[in-house]
Amino acid sequence: MASEAVFTRWAQRVEASLDAALPDPVRAPQRLHAAMRHAALGGGKRMRPLLVYAAGTMTGADEGVLDAPATAVELIHAYSLVHDDLPAMDDDALRRGQPTVHIAFDEATAVLAGDALQTLAFEVLAGSDAGAVLRVAWLQTLAQASGVAGMCGGQALDIDATGQLQSLQALQHMHALKTGALIRASVRLGALAGGVEEATLQRLDAFAQALGLAFQVRDDILDIEASSETLGKTAGKDAAQSKSTYPALLGIDGAKAKLDALAAQMHELLAPFGARADALLALGELAIKRER
Amino acid sequence: MASEAVFTRWAQRVEASLDAALPDPVRAPQRLHAAMRHAALGGGKRMRPLLVYAAGTMTGADEGVLDAPATAVELIHAYSLVHDDLPAMDDDALRRGQPTVHIAFDEATAVLAGDALQTLAFEVLAGSDAGAVLRVAWLQTLAQASGVAGMCGGQALDIDATGQLQSLQALQHMHALKTGALIRASVRLGALAGGVEEATLQRLDAFAQALGLAFQVRDDILDIEASSETLGKTAGKDAAQSKSTYPALLGIDGAKAKLDALAAQMHELLAPFGARADALLALGELAIKRER
Repeated sequence: MASEAVFTRWAQRVEASLDAALPDPVRAPQRLHAAMRHAALGGGKRMRPLLVYAAGTMTGADEGVLDAPATAVELIHAYSLVHDDLPAMDDDALRRGQPTVHIAFDEATAVLAGDALQTLAFEVLAGSDAGAVLRVAWLQTLAQASGVAGMCGGQALDIDATGQLQSLQALQHMHALKTGALIRASVRLGALAGGVEEATLQRLDAFAQALGLAFQVRDDILDIEASSETLGKTAGKDAAQSKSTYPALLGIDGAKAKLDALAAQMHELLAPFGARADALLALGELAIKRER
Repeated sequence: MASEAVFTRWAQRVEASLDAALPDPVRAPQRLHAAMRHAALGGGKRMRPLLVYAAGTMTGADEGVLDAPATAVELIHAYSLVHDDLPAMDDDALRRGQPTVHIAFDEATAVLAGDALQTLAFEVLAGSDAGAVLRVAWLQTLAQASGVAGMCGGQALDIDATGQLQSLQALQHMHALKTGALIRASVRLGALAGGVEEATLQRLDAFAQALGLAFQVRDDILDIEASSETLGKTAGKDAAQSKSTYPALLGIDGAKAKLDALAAQMHELLAPFGARADALLALGELAIKRER
């Protein structure tokens, strides 16, 4: 697949950009700086940055312009993982095959590192080289997707629902906020840099919604079928915490059929773009077929 | 003092603007929304918003334009208090005479509410009615003041230093980041809206630095001399946690002499503005003479 070399290059771009944006580990406060770097560097699938690059280059943006939004969305993702792993939240010791931040450092440092990673995301966007109008559109997109109407709101809904069997509708709404909002924002950040018209933004947003849902259905299946070693995080957590999942509501075969339907939907939505959509479609496939 | 009526009006403006920006407590996730409102509404001196209005109106900005930055800076301040009060951080049960968020709700909700309040600060700025260039300048100012080179970095330095007697220089550097950066940002946010030239920005920044330092010296004195009841938060914490303070390093009389010197410096810096600086100077006086 031709996309693989492209994905490697984009992953290297965002790694370099994250490294440049993150504070120097040698300067004080070293512990905070080291914790931020532990959380954001050297791991993860970088799915959100790859979506920014794929949507952006497809719509005509230069790769260099996309470094800032790719970096910012990954910083938001990294901060959310640090805080989600805290003892008061999911209480998880393992992430990306490494000890979580509050285990590798301490809890106070994990709270602060998450806070500072969030701030840095907005600082990277506000200070980028792009025009002021584009920067403001990016900042608004990222803030809306991260806050109460997006990721934070979804996390709160998830906590509120733990231990109760939810309806499929409630489950979809929760995931649409908790993980879907940031995935949609990633595609939108790229497309905004490409300067596309509203109809194209909407079509790409529908694709991103399908991808976000597929990502979550696959996540639930992997939590059942994969080992902690393969996942690089604790497997079997959902059942242990009595969380509602797609396999629990649809059966494991029903969940897999849902993935097939979402794959078809993604292809249909991107058909008008022809071969230009190859990278974006390949990311959709990865969300559905990934093993971790 | 004529300023008092003005301060009351500005405090009402920012209260109304916070109320409008914060999520509806009746909508799900209610617990998160209620926690955010508990943290941000109905308390506090609103010193940072008042500084935004005072610096902004002095330099010719309309009050209406200043609502967004006044609200944003208070949201950042509110988030920082929620996280600082967590068990893993200062472990404090009382704030503004009310139970802290993790006491009134729970720890997971407090982590999330702080996170969402921070996001909301950037969302309010990005979505305001001001021009894109001004919005980007505001966003950059607020992000830089809140992150590793500002508030978060200062908090980390404070944690690293707890239990050790610091030098006066190290103490000043820590406070310049932990509380000073957001106070300086408040004045700068207002002055940016006023569209002042660089020399005026620098003079106002020197004033804000003196005010920030005075605020902290007074804070340290109050921690020794005032009761928890008067403060609305736990008194005597610094000594209990073996923190370095200005009274510990300079003696209580030395700390009070420092306040007098800072008052004189603030007057001198604002002298060129004449009566237009009355509100800003009155805020400087309040920082020095406050009883809580």
